[in-house]
Amino acid sequence: MPTITVWNEYIHEKENDRAAELYPDGIHAHIADVLAEAGHDTHTATLQEPDHGLTEDVLEDTDVLYWWGHIAHDEVDDAVADRVARHVREGMGLIVLHSGHHAKPFRQLLGMDADLTWREAEERERLHVIDPGHPIASGLPESFVVPEAEMYGEPFTVPEPDRLVFVSWFEGGEVFRSGCCYRRGKGRIFYFRPGHETYPVYHQDEIQTVLRNAAEWAAPVEGSPYPTAPRNVPDPAEDIDGYDR
Amino acid sequence: MPTITVWNEYIHEKENDRAAELYPDGIHAHIADVLAEAGHDTHTATLQEPDHGLTEDVLEDTDVLYWWGHIAHDEVDDAVADRVARHVREGMGLIVLHSGHHAKPFRQLLGMDADLTWREAEERERLHVIDPGHPIASGLPESFVVPEAEMYGEPFTVPEPDRLVFVSWFEGGEVFRSGCCYRRGKGRIFYFRPGHETYPVYHQDEIQTVLRNAAEWAAPVEGSPYPTAPRNVPDPAEDIDGYDR
Amino acid sequence: MPTITVWNEYIHEKENDRAAELYPDGIHAHIADVLAEAGHDTHTATLQEPDHGLTEDVLEDTDVLYWWGHIAHDEVDDAVADRVARHVREGMGLIVLHSGHHAKPFRQLLGMDADLTWREAEERERLHVIDPGHPIASGLPESFVVPEAEMYGEPFTVPEPDRLVFVSWFEGGEVFRSGCCYRRGKGRIFYFRPGHETYPVYHQDEIQTVLRNAAEWAAPVEGSPYPTAPRNVPDPAEDIDGYDR
Amino acid sequence: MPTITVWNEYIHEKENDRAAELYPDGIHAHIADVLAEAGHDTHTATLQEPDHGLTEDVLEDTDVLYWWGHIAHDEVDDAVADRVARHVREGMGLIVLHSGHHAKPFRQLLGMDADLTWREAEERERLHVIDPGHPIASGLPESFVVPEAEMYGEPFTVPEPDRLVFVSWFEGGEVFRSGCCYRRGKGRIFYFRPGHETYPVYHQDEIQTVLRNAAEWAAPVEGSPYPTAPRNVPDPAEDIDGYDR
Repeated sequence: MPTITVWNEYIHEKENDRAAELYPDGIHAHIADVLAEAGHDTHTATLQEPDHGLTEDVLEDTDVLYWWGHIAHDEVDDAVADRVARHVREGMGLIVLHSGHHAKPFRQLLGMDADLTWREAEERERLHVIDPGHPIASGLPESFVVPEAEMYGEPFTVPEPDRLVFVSWFEGGEVFRSGCCYRRGKGRIFYFRPGHETYPVYHQDEIQTVLRNAAEWAAPVEGSPYPTAPRNVPDPAEDIDGYDR
Repeated sequence: MPTITVWNEYIHEKENDRAAELYPDGIHAHIADVLAEAGHDTHTATLQEPDHGLTEDVLEDTDVLYWWGHIAHDEVDDAVADRVARHVREGMGLIVLHSGHHAKPFRQLLGMDADLTWREAEERERLHVIDPGHPIASGLPESFVVPEAEMYGEPFTVPEPDRLVFVSWFEGGEVFRSGCCYRRGKGRIFYFRPGHETYPVYHQDEIQTVLRNAAEWAAPVEGSPYPTAPRNVPDPAEDIDGYDR
Repeated sequence: MPTITVWNEYIHEKENDRAAELYPDGIHAHIADVLAEAGHDTHTATLQEPDHGLTEDVLEDTDVLYWWGHIAHDEVDDAVADRVARHVREGMGLIVLHSGHHAKPFRQLLGMDADLTWREAEERERLHVIDPGHPIASGLPESFVVPEAEMYGEPFTVPEPDRLVFVSWFEGGEVFRSGCCYRRGKGRIFYFRPGHETYPVYHQDEIQTVLRNAAEWAAPVEGSPYPTAPRNVPDPAEDIDGYDR
Repeated sequence: MPTITVWNEYIHEKENDRAAELYPDGIHAHIADVLAEAGHDTHTATLQEPDHGLTEDVLEDTDVLYWWGHIAHDEVDDAVADRVARHVREGMGLIVLHSGHHAKPFRQLLGMDADLTWREAEERERLHVIDPGHPIASGLPESFVVPEAEMYGEPFTVPEPDRLVFVSWFEGGEVFRSGCCYRRGKGRIFYFRPGHETYPVYHQDEIQTVLRNAAEWAAPVEGSPYPTAPRNVPDPAEDIDGYDR
């Protein structure tokens, strides 16, 4: 099974009572527990650690990286963001959660700002499965409810996803592409919308099912050799008329 | 591991000496052997059997169906083609080989004619991996040679594939999208170009690697409930102003 | 500007008082008027005419075909459906409206059943533009309301669209991919959800804007030669070692 | 018709005799002439100008930007690359030529390195139209030859293109996705492979046809409002139970 690293900026849970109550050891620890129960080898890393806990060695040993950030995206070092993006291109999976839509490596890999509209009104969200044949939807019903959610609305300024798994309905009238799959190089990227820090979203069964499925889906595949640099190939496989190297 | 059925029109091998020499028990038996060696539970079916060997029961028990046909596409019963297409939509994988581009269920699922240009000149084909991160490319080099091939050339009149895994180079100057992935409903479809009956293509290591990888890739996923009919839902989940069923 | 043919099964407007009141000369005549006001050369055709009004000559002269059908899909002759699908592959645009999701040529071109859930509860629909850079969205706000709509809900069993332009929010809790773009061969296909016969949907400004934009978007492009049959090309452009035709 | 700016790093033509002979006033001036003859309002800009000639005002007035760069990608100021990428997201078209695959704004918009293999052997290239229904292919034959070309080979480490228009065959045995369409935000991006500075590629008819077609294809569309920042929307369009702002 894939080896998981769950990254968290880890600020709200130390400053906001409700977040602390829901996730006493941090969202990262909670999600790591959920995945560990499913049998994964899980690790965590946070903004406050050296290199934000995402050294070359850690990423080398990570099959799938989960990312939760919100108010401290700018504090993520550019070199670390570059490193994460490079590992994704070379095969590491990346699961971007909720407010992580503005995370540096996500924006960098998409080439877009990933802006959206939002509202905090404890409103009802209904996630509809758009792609019932997608492995990330395995074990889910046709739709399910998140009783209290922060709203995210379209337009979500991302590239058209390779596969769209979920679309959310919000009580206040909006919709959102809540489960978006991308590929960059050999790496798989899944953006999953739910997850505000002051709602018990990651305690919900269906959400945990998605988190588990995403690990399997985003795990690296062997594939064929992936070039990490341009390469001159002066010796052609076939004869070129008049060319003698 | 997925349960495989390999289907063959099974005509050339009984009428053409070279085909008989290469595939004495038929291409279907040969491919089934290749997949059985990889541990799959494999079965075969041919045009000549009742229902072409593709009864409801057989398809119900098939995870991935391989299809080889060439000169007898029209002899495939429409009802059987419809049945195959329906099973694909409901999750069965379909691997369409070489001249199977004109197979009834393939054309029906794509909504296109899948025409192309061709030439039999025993020319060299080079298959280049375009998508090194695709599981069907696992274990392959960046490119490999089929020493003697029937040429297929563009334009290949199919929908733009969801993922393009291979592009072929031909000695005579053509190119071809030789590995095309599609999804229809819950089912995965892979078109793989190589495979003329009078060349030992399916005896080649790299080709067998692709055949094996394709079985894993096309295997059904659980997903969420898939509707096989339209459905009236008069009872809304949310209140509708003024509506009282 | 593109030459338009608007096709309608033309049954409801002759049998249902509300439909007759909204569209006294039929939905086809109404939509043709809307497009004619924008300067298009418009024609109409209905189920009841010989060949349903869609002869080879008519289709040859049609740049974009609009299709409205609901309760009489099965009465459309297979040969006419085949003819429409062929013309789309060769470049004619096809705009499929509302209950036309079950139209024979649409299903045939997609290779899917295009099933969905539905409810008639005069509920509110909000169409959100998902792709603000799409020409079909030109002149629209970020979202707009259809005050009374028949609901269509996911899963909509179609292939993942090439571009998704609109997603609908429904009062009763559903979402739907209401504006889906496809290409088949040289032809462009746009499915547009709104349009029940007993609501004044096609009288609404934003809807008419979409209808007009769709004509421009779906108009044929010159492109390069499109093959309508397989073709043997025994004479290679490049020398093939040992091959002398 | 779209207003065009053709950008060039403009170094080879001042240092290499063959390049100077082919493009005495620079590749940018030559391409601008080709497009001006087609009726476009054309401008040029080069690396050596202040802001590389790509000020906010210039980009504001540019519908489609052509980009030719090779040995001086690193000398392009990050702020200018960011500015170009932003204008693309907001609707400006971007045509990236040949060695521009490594241009900063292109890589930034794709989120990928856009690496490839290459060889300078004056070999023959055959460009095959893969998508005969694409407007960029209008007026072209099924395939055409560039007699002397620098080879680019796969894997080309870019995201899977939205539409693949051309695939190249090379004498030495490689293939390449030579015409790749992307969308980022409201902007259209077309990568077109041919164009080495020491071959008369941009003097060739078919190549000039592509350059002209690309301008039309990449021109901005009106679309609907595009958000350039996240936005709080505390007032919902629909009532939210228990929420009173």
